[in-house]
Amino acid sequence: MSNFELMKSLAISTPSKIVLLVMDGLGGLPRPQDGKTELEAARTPNMDALAAEGVCGLTDPMAPGITPGSGPSHLALFGYDPVVYDIGRGVLEALGVGFDLQQNDLAARGNFCTVDDGGLVTDRRAGRIASEKSAEVCRKLAQIELEGAQLFVLPVKEHRFALVFRGEGLSDELTESDPQRTGLPAAPVRALSPAAQKAARVANEFVEKARSALQDVQPANMVLLRGFSRHPHPPTVEEIYKLKPAAIAAYPMYRGLAKLVGMDVLETGSTPEDEVATLVRRYADFDFFFLHIKPTDSAGEDGDFARKVAAIEAVDALLPRITALQPDVLIITGDHSTPAALKNHSWHPVPFLLHSPWCRTDAAIEFSERACLGGGLGRFRATDAMPLAMAHALKLEKYGA
Amino acid sequence: MSNFELMKSLAISTPSKIVLLVMDGLGGLPRPQDGKTELEAARTPNMDALAAEGVCGLTDPMAPGITPGSGPSHLALFGYDPVVYDIGRGVLEALGVGFDLQQNDLAARGNFCTVDDGGLVTDRRAGRIASEKSAEVCRKLAQIELEGAQLFVLPVKEHRFALVFRGEGLSDELTESDPQRTGLPAAPVRALSPAAQKAARVANEFVEKARSALQDVQPANMVLLRGFSRHPHPPTVEEIYKLKPAAIAAYPMYRGLAKLVGMDVLETGSTPEDEVATLVRRYADFDFFFLHIKPTDSAGEDGDFARKVAAIEAVDALLPRITALQPDVLIITGDHSTPAALKNHSWHPVPFLLHSPWCRTDAAIEFSERACLGGGLGRFRATDAMPLAMAHALKLEKYGA
Repeated sequence: MSNFELMKSLAISTPSKIVLLVMDGLGGLPRPQDGKTELEAARTPNMDALAAEGVCGLTDPMAPGITPGSGPSHLALFGYDPVVYDIGRGVLEALGVGFDLQQNDLAARGNFCTVDDGGLVTDRRAGRIASEKSAEVCRKLAQIELEGAQLFVLPVKEHRFALVFRGEGLSDELTESDPQRTGLPAAPVRALSPAAQKAARVANEFVEKARSALQDVQPANMVLLRGFSRHPHPPTVEEIYKLKPAAIAAYPMYRGLAKLVGMDVLETGSTPEDEVATLVRRYADFDFFFLHIKPTDSAGEDGDFARKVAAIEAVDALLPRITALQPDVLIITGDHSTPAALKNHSWHPVPFLLHSPWCRTDAAIEFSERACLGGGLGRFRATDAMPLAMAHALKLEKYGA
Repeated sequence: MSNFELMKSLAISTPSKIVLLVMDGLGGLPRPQDGKTELEAARTPNMDALAAEGVCGLTDPMAPGITPGSGPSHLALFGYDPVVYDIGRGVLEALGVGFDLQQNDLAARGNFCTVDDGGLVTDRRAGRIASEKSAEVCRKLAQIELEGAQLFVLPVKEHRFALVFRGEGLSDELTESDPQRTGLPAAPVRALSPAAQKAARVANEFVEKARSALQDVQPANMVLLRGFSRHPHPPTVEEIYKLKPAAIAAYPMYRGLAKLVGMDVLETGSTPEDEVATLVRRYADFDFFFLHIKPTDSAGEDGDFARKVAAIEAVDALLPRITALQPDVLIITGDHSTPAALKNHSWHPVPFLLHSPWCRTDAAIEFSERACLGGGLGRFRATDAMPLAMAHALKLEKYGA
C-alpha cells in the first residue's frame, strides 16, 4: 500500500481547517558577524510565540544533500514523492499562466535571449526585458505555423514564456536547446527516443521560425527552450486527503503547481499582505489553504541577507491576522532553503513549525534553525508534512484495530 | 533483501536474554497546569535510573502522523511491517481467546448491540453487558446452524465476541455490518469480490438467525460484525530471529497477536504484578519475553490522566523484580501513544528505553517524552526495535566481511 493509498483509506472530511504557510526558500545559512541565519536574525515575536506553544522540526525536501527546484519541493510538501511525480517545468509554466493544458499537449519553458551575429548567446535572459515587451514578442511568435502541431505562446514574466505544442504523438523525451551559458549557440532539440522524433522536428521548426521572426527584435532576438513535459495528471489533494483545498499564491508557477494537484487557485493581489487578506476573505469556503510567500526566496537568490530578514519580519507582522482565524493546524515552513550566502536553492533542511491544540509541545521557544533542530518533530521528509497536518487536525482515522 | 531476510541471515542463537516490556498506549500529551505528560508526571525512579544507564529514543509505530490500532502497532514492535502484514481484528479476537484457527476459517469480531423496534442501533455495545451474561448469549448463538459452514461463537469480554465460520471458499473480502454509529440499522454484509459471495451469504444468514434468536434478550438483542479476516501465517519470531519467544499478556487480543507470530503464550494472572511473577517463574525457559501491560492504555482511553500516571508508577514499582533477573537487553516502551487528552490512540511518537551493557549511553537521565527526544536512538520506526534488541543482545552477526 502506497502512502497515498494509506491516506485515502484513513482520511476523513471534518470541519477542521489547515493553513500551510510556505515562505519560499526559508532556510538559511549563518552570516559571519554573529553566526545567525536569516530566520535567526529576523525579529519574529509572533512566530516565536507559536513555536513556544507548538512543535518544531526540520524537513528534508527530498533527501539529505539533495537541492530541489520549486516544483519538486512543493510537491513534497503536498505529500507527493517528487521522484515519482516528476513534473516538468514546461507544464508548470503553462499551468501558472492559467493555460488549460490538455492530454495531447507538449509544454516547454521558453526564455527570450540575445544572440550575436554568429548566433552565439550573449545574454540568456535578453536583459530581463519588460513583461509588456515580452508579451508583444509572444504575440508575434504565436503567428508561426507548424506542420503537425498547433502552437500556443504564452507570456509569463520578463524574458520567460510558456510554449505549448498541441498534436498527436508529441513525446517529451527531448533534449533542451538552452546551452546554459553564454558564448555558445542554441543547441538543436534532439529526440531521446524514436517516439520523440516528431516532437523534436516540431520543436526545431519552431526555433528556426522564431529565429527568423525575431531577427530584427532587440534584445530578444532568439529563444531557448527547456523543460519539455506533458501533464502528469497526479491524484488530486481532494482525492488523497478528502480536503477542499485552496491556493493563495501571487507568483504564476506556484499557482500552476497548486492547480496541477487540484487546488482551487484563488484570485489574489500580489503582496504577502494581499495574500493574507485573500485568506481572511475566503476562509469560510475551504478547509485547506496553501499560502505561498515569494519574497523570502527572491531575496535569498539575490544574495541579499538583509532583504530576506525583512521579508521574514514582514510575514511575522501579518501573522496575527492568520492566528485570529484560529485554524486547527497552522504550519509555517519553507519549500527548501535559499541561503543568501549561496544565492541559490540549497540542500539544507528547512525549519518547520506546527501549531495545533493536539501537538506535543517541545522545548523550542523561538522559530529558528537551531530551535527546530531540537524540536519534537525531529528531522523528517517533507512528504510527511501532510500526514502530520492531517493527524493534528484530527482528520485521519486509526490504521487497523 | 527484505528486513526479515537480513535478520534471518544475521541472527544467531545465544544464551543472552531480551525482555520487551510494552506499556500499552504509553506516550501522552501535556496537561495544561504544568505542561507534563503522563509519563513526565509519574514518579518513576527505577525507569529513570535505567534511562540514565541506558539509551533512549522515540518510535513512530508506522509513520509520522499515522495512528495505529493495537494489532499493527504490536506487529511493528515485533519487526513486522504492519502494512505488509495486515492482520484483521477477527483473527486477533479468535486467537486471543485461544481458538485454534485453521486454514479454512473466516473470523470476525462481533459486538452485541441494542436495537430499537425499528431495527435502529441505540447502543453499539449493548451497555457493555457483563462477561458472564455475554458468554450465556454466545452459547445461544452457537446453536445456530448455517448452510455450507460450521460456526463457532466465542465470548471475549463484555459485549465482544469472536465469530468463526469454517468451510470451503470463505473469502474475507467483505464489508462490515457495524454502522459505526447509533441511529442507523445494521448494514448487510456485502461481497467486495465475486469470490466472496458465499462468505457474504453465510455471514448474512448468521446475522438474520442471530436477530431471531436474540429478539427477547435485553439489552443484547442484536449483533454487529467487523474485521472479517483469515489467518495470514506470517513467518514466526523463531524463524526470523532464532529466538525462543514467550508472551506474558493478560488481555486476550495481545495473547492472540503473540500466538500469531509464533510466541509461546504463557499462563498468567491478570495484573501487571501477576505478569511479572510469571516472567520470574519462567525466566529460565525462554530467551525473549514480550511482557504486555494494559492498564496504561485503558486509563488513556478513559481520559483519566491520574489513573494513567498511577498505572505507570505501578509498573515502575515492579521493575526491580525484572532488573534482578539481569536481562541482557531490557526495553521499556509503548506500542503507540494514548494521551488522556485525546481519549484515544494517537500518532505521537512513543518513548523508548533500551538498557544493556552494550548501549551507547546518552544524556537522558529520566524516562520521559522530552528526555527521549534528545536520546541516543533518535527517532525511528518501531520496526527497528527488534534489530536494535538483537544487536544489543549480541545476537546478530556482521553483515559482509
